[in-house]
Amino acid sequence: MLKLLIVLGFLILNIVQAKLYYIEVKYPLLGKESPPGSPWPMPHFINGTSDQILLLRKKKFQIKTNLEVQCDIVSENVKHYRNVIFPPKIYNPQRKRLREHKYLNVLSINIAQSKECPKYPHSNMDESYNLTISSNEAKLNANSVWGALRGLETFSQLTYFDTDNKLVMNDSTVIIDKPRFVYRGLLVDTARHFIPVPILKKQIDAMAYHKLNVLHWHIVDDQSFPFELKTYPNVTEKGKYSDAHVYTQNDVKSIVEHARLRGIRVIPEFDTPGHVESFGRAFPEFITVCWKDGKPYQPIFGVQGAAEIINPTNEYVYPVLKDILTEFRDVFPDEYIHLGNDEVYYECWKSNPDIAKWMEKMNFSDYHHLQAYYSSKLLKIVQDLDKKSTVWQDVYDNGVDLQKGTQIQIWKDSSILPEHGTWSDYLNKVTKDGYAAILSSPWYINFISYGYQEWYKFYKVEPLANFTGDAEQAKLLIGGEAAIWSEYVDGGNLDSRLWPRLSAIAERLWSPAHVNDPEEAKFRLDEQRCRLLRRGIVAAPILNGYCGNYEYGMAKSNIFDPVFNYGWPNVQ
Amino acid sequence: MLKLLIVLGFLILNIVQAKLYYIEVKYPLLGKESPPGSPWPMPHFINGTSDQILLLRKKKFQIKTNLEVQCDIVSENVKHYRNVIFPPKIYNPQRKRLREHKYLNVLSINIAQSKECPKYPHSNMDESYNLTISSNEAKLNANSVWGALRGLETFSQLTYFDTDNKLVMNDSTVIIDKPRFVYRGLLVDTARHFIPVPILKKQIDAMAYHKLNVLHWHIVDDQSFPFELKTYPNVTEKGKYSDAHVYTQNDVKSIVEHARLRGIRVIPEFDTPGHVESFGRAFPEFITVCWKDGKPYQPIFGVQGAAEIINPTNEYVYPVLKDILTEFRDVFPDEYIHLGNDEVYYECWKSNPDIAKWMEKMNFSDYHHLQAYYSSKLLKIVQDLDKKSTVWQDVYDNGVDLQKGTQIQIWKDSSILPEHGTWSDYLNKVTKDGYAAILSSPWYINFISYGYQEWYKFYKVEPLANFTGDAEQAKLLIGGEAAIWSEYVDGGNLDSRLWPRLSAIAERLWSPAHVNDPEEAKFRLDEQRCRLLRRGIVAAPILNGYCGNYEYGMAKSNIFDPVFNYGWPNVQ
Repeated sequence: MLKLLIVLGFLILNIVQAKLYYIEVKYPLLGKESPPGSPWPMPHFINGTSDQILLLRKKKFQIKTNLEVQCDIVSENVKHYRNVIFPPKIYNPQRKRLREHKYLNVLSINIAQSKECPKYPHSNMDESYNLTISSNEAKLNANSVWGALRGLETFSQLTYFDTDNKLVMNDSTVIIDKPRFVYRGLLVDTARHFIPVPILKKQIDAMAYHKLNVLHWHIVDDQSFPFELKTYPNVTEKGKYSDAHVYTQNDVKSIVEHARLRGIRVIPEFDTPGHVESFGRAFPEFITVCWKDGKPYQPIFGVQGAAEIINPTNEYVYPVLKDILTEFRDVFPDEYIHLGNDEVYYECWKSNPDIAKWMEKMNFSDYHHLQAYYSSKLLKIVQDLDKKSTVWQDVYDNGVDLQKGTQIQIWKDSSILPEHGTWSDYLNKVTKDGYAAILSSPWYINFISYGYQEWYKFYKVEPLANFTGDAEQAKLLIGGEAAIWSEYVDGGNLDSRLWPRLSAIAERLWSPAHVNDPEEAKFRLDEQRCRLLRRGIVAAPILNGYCGNYEYGMAKSNIFDPVFNYGWPNVQ
Repeated sequence: MLKLLIVLGFLILNIVQAKLYYIEVKYPLLGKESPPGSPWPMPHFINGTSDQILLLRKKKFQIKTNLEVQCDIVSENVKHYRNVIFPPKIYNPQRKRLREHKYLNVLSINIAQSKECPKYPHSNMDESYNLTISSNEAKLNANSVWGALRGLETFSQLTYFDTDNKLVMNDSTVIIDKPRFVYRGLLVDTARHFIPVPILKKQIDAMAYHKLNVLHWHIVDDQSFPFELKTYPNVTEKGKYSDAHVYTQNDVKSIVEHARLRGIRVIPEFDTPGHVESFGRAFPEFITVCWKDGKPYQPIFGVQGAAEIINPTNEYVYPVLKDILTEFRDVFPDEYIHLGNDEVYYECWKSNPDIAKWMEKMNFSDYHHLQAYYSSKLLKIVQDLDKKSTVWQDVYDNGVDLQKGTQIQIWKDSSILPEHGTWSDYLNKVTKDGYAAILSSPWYINFISYGYQEWYKFYKVEPLANFTGDAEQAKLLIGGEAAIWSEYVDGGNLDSRLWPRLSAIAERLWSPAHVNDPEEAKFRLDEQRCRLLRRGIVAAPILNGYCGNYEYGMAKSNIFDPVFNYGWPNVQ
C-alpha cells in the first residue's frame, strides 16, 4: 500500500509536470515517458498551465497569413510544418469518437512587415514572435518572416499525440519569445569525411527545429577538397576523395536554398594557410618547403604534427586565392566568409632559409608577423569582394589589425591548451577591442564521453559567467557555435552524434540565462529527442525509457520521404 | 620531384599492402582507401600474395555443395551469400570489356559430414574450414556445416570491387582457418531501451560477418520486462514499457531462427534476484521490504543505488521462477540459460528483521550465504529442466558449489571496482576450480570515449596475458563476450556504437594470439567497416577517408531489403 501511494505520487508528479514544464523533479522517472508538448529550446516566456486540450484534425486545420506579397519563405514553411505537425502514420492511431473536445482549426500568422519578403537570412534578423493558443484559433505575431518561422517551429512542438493517438495541444498557452544571442551556429566539417547532401539537408532541418541560424560549412581541409571549383578545377580533381565525394556548385546552391528557406545562413570556410594539404596537391609550388640538415626535406604529412602550409612570401599565391574567394562569394550569398587561419605551426616556415631572408628584408622580427602579413592580405581580398570576414581567434592573437565588422571565433581554452588563457579571458579581450566574438571552445561536440551527464557539460556553459565588460561590450558577444569535427563522424553517425547533444547548446543560445538547470531540462530534452525521432532525425537516448511508438521511425530515416525534399539520389 | 617520389612510394606501399595484408605500415594513409579483399577477423593462416585477379559474374557464378541431405543451414546461406557477394547496385559500375581476365565460376563446398544437418548451433561446433581460390574454381572444405558457414563468410570478404567496379577476387589464395576460442559472444540489453526485432536481426547478421557465435540476450531488467510471458502475462503487462515494446514469443522464435541459420546460439538471461524492478510490479510480495528506523520503508527506486531485490526467504518465489524458467526453456533451444545473479546489494536484506530471524534459524552467518542459498535453488531448477547455467561471477564469488558444466562470466576488474581483483586473477581462480570462464570485464563496449584509439584498447586485450594455468586449464577459458548495456543505446545508434568497435574484439577471439598489432589492423578494420556499410550496417569511421561509393548505402539501411529478411513491419 505504501508502495502504491508512492507510485501514485509519481504519476501525479508526472501529470503535473506535463503541464508545468518548469517544475523541479528530483528523481529520475525510469521507464516513464517525458511530458508531451514541451517546447525546446524553452521560450523567453511561457504560460502553459491549461487543463484544456484542443484537438487538431488534418483535414480541417488551416494556416493563414496576412502577407501581402508572395513569399516562398513563408509559403514553403507553411507546407513544411503541415507535414511536420501531421506526420505520416508510423503506427495506427486508435479511432475513437472525438466527442467532448474543443478544436483548434486555424493558425493565423500576422507579420508586421507584411509587404516584405527578404531574400536571405542575415546577421540582423528579427526572430522574435509571440504565440497565443485558444479554442478555435491560434495567433502567431511576428515583426518579420524570420520570427514567423521561429514561431511556426514552436507551434509545431506544442502539438503532441495523446494516449489515444489523437493530435492535440494544450489550450490557453501564451508564449512571448526572442533569442538571447543573435548568432547560434553549427560547424560541420565535410573534409575529413564527406557528408552526403541529403544528410546535410536533414541536419539543416534539425537546426531549424532548434532555432539555430548559422551553418558554418568547414567545407575543405587537409584531407580532401570536396568543393567543385570552376576557376581551378584541378584543385577539386586532385583534392577530392573520389567523384562521389564532391559538392558540385549545384549541390551547394541547393543546400544554401534549403537553409535560406529555414532562416539559416550558410557561411563557408576556406581555411588557409594551414590545413591545405588537399589544396596543395594542385599547387605544390605554393606550399612551404621545409628544410632539415641544410637541404629541402619533405616531412610526411600527418606524422608528428607535420602539416602543409602555404608560403606567404610567394606573391603568386594571392591572385589564386583571390580567384577562389571570388568563386566562394559567387556561390555563397551570405555577407560573411570564414577565412580560417587557425593552427598555423611555424616549424616549417622557420626551417626555410628563403623565408628567413625575406623576413629580414621586410623587417619582420617574428613569425606571428609573417602570419599577420598573410592574414591581412586575405582580409583585404574579402573586403574588396564586398564581404565581411570571420576568422579563428589565431588572427587576433597574432595582433592583426582587423576591420570592425570582423567576427572572431574563440576556440582555445586553457583546459585543452594549458599555455592559453580561458575562453572567458578571450571573450573579454576580443569584445573590449571592439570585435564581435563567437564562442566555440566549450562546444566541440565531436568530443564524446560516456553517459548523459555529457550534455550537462554543454548545457551548463554560461558565456557571460566571467564576463567583465558592460552591456555595450556584451552585445559584441554575438553568440556561439558548436563544432562537429568529422574525424570519427560521417553521414552514418552524424544524427546520433549531434542530437540531442547539440540541442542542449541550442537552448543555451536561445533561451534566457536562468533556464540552466539540467535536472529540470532532462525531461524536456528527452521529449525533444523523441520529437526528433518522429521527424526522422535519429537522435540518441539520454534517459532510460521509450518514445511511444516513435522508435519505429528510427529505422526509416526521412531521407527518402519526398515531403522533406532532401533529394536523395536514386539509390539501389 | 622529391614529393612525387614520396607519393609514388606511398602508392606502391599501398598496392603491396593490398596483397600482403600483414605488411607493417608505419604512417597513416590519410584519405586513402584501405586494401580491398582483406578478411576480418584474420584467418589462422592466409597466403594471399597473388598478382592475378579473377572476375566473378553474377549470372555465371555458382555455389555447389556435396551435401547428401537437405540442410536449410547450408541452402539458406548459399542464398544469403549470393546476395552479399553480388549486392544490389548502389552505384553504377562502368561497363568495360572484360577481356584478358580469368574468371571464377564455381565455389565448391565440401562438407565431410555430408549426411548431417544439425538442428542448432552448440558449444562444441566444429567451425574450422579451409579455402583455396584458383582460376575457375574455389574450394571450401569443412568438417561440419558450421565450418562451411564460416568459410562462406571469408569467401564473401575476399571479393571486392576494383576501380572499374568489376567484382573480383585475388587468385591463388589459400586459407586454413579455425577459431582460437570456442565462445565468442555479444550481450545485448533490451530492457533499458527496446531494440526493434529487425534491428536485432541485423546485428545477428553483423555477428555472422565477424564469426561471432553467441548472442547473450539480456532480455529483461529493472527498467522493463519486454518478454511475452504466457505463464504470468501480468509480468509482461506490468513490466513492459508499452505494447510496442514487447518481444512476443513469435518474435523470439523468429530471432532464434535467424540466429540458428547463421550458426549463432541465443542464450537468454533472466536476471534475478536483483535487477527485478519490472518483474516485481506483478509480484510485489516477492520483493524484499527494506526497513528504516524500526519500520518498513520503501526507498525510491533508482535513487542512491536503491534497487529492488527478491526476498529469498519467501518460499513462494521459487515455484513462480521455476514456471518462468520452464517457459524460457521452451522458447530458447540453447543448452544454456543465463541466471544473472549479479549486483546484489545487501543493504535492504540487512535492514529486514524477518530475514535476520530466518537466517538465524538457518545458521547463516552472512548475506553471501543468503545469496548462495538463492542461487543454488535456481541452479537446481535449471538442472532439473535439463539445461545448463551461465551466471555472472558473483555466484562464484559467494562460494556457491557449482556443477561442472556451469559457465561463469567474469565482469569485475580492479580498474573499475578497486575493491576487486583483476580479471586475470578471476580467470585463474575460476578455471583452476574447474569451471568454464567467459571474459567480459575489458569489453563493456557501451563505455565510449573519443577517437579511434578506443578500439585499440579492446583489441589489445590478451585473455591469456597473465594466465598461470596449464594447457588443460586454459581450455576452460572458453572465450569472451562483449556487452553493450543500453542505457544510452537504442535501435537508432546501435549499429554505430557496436561496429566496428566490436569487430576488434571479434578478431581477438577468433584469430591467433599473434595477430595483435593495431597499427597493422587498422587498415583492414577500416576496410571491414566499409564492407559493413555496403551490407547495410551503419558502422562508424575509424580513419579519415572514404569507402568508395559505399556511403550511399548508409542512408538506406538494409532493414527494408527483402533479401535480408529482417521483416520490418509495414512502416509509414
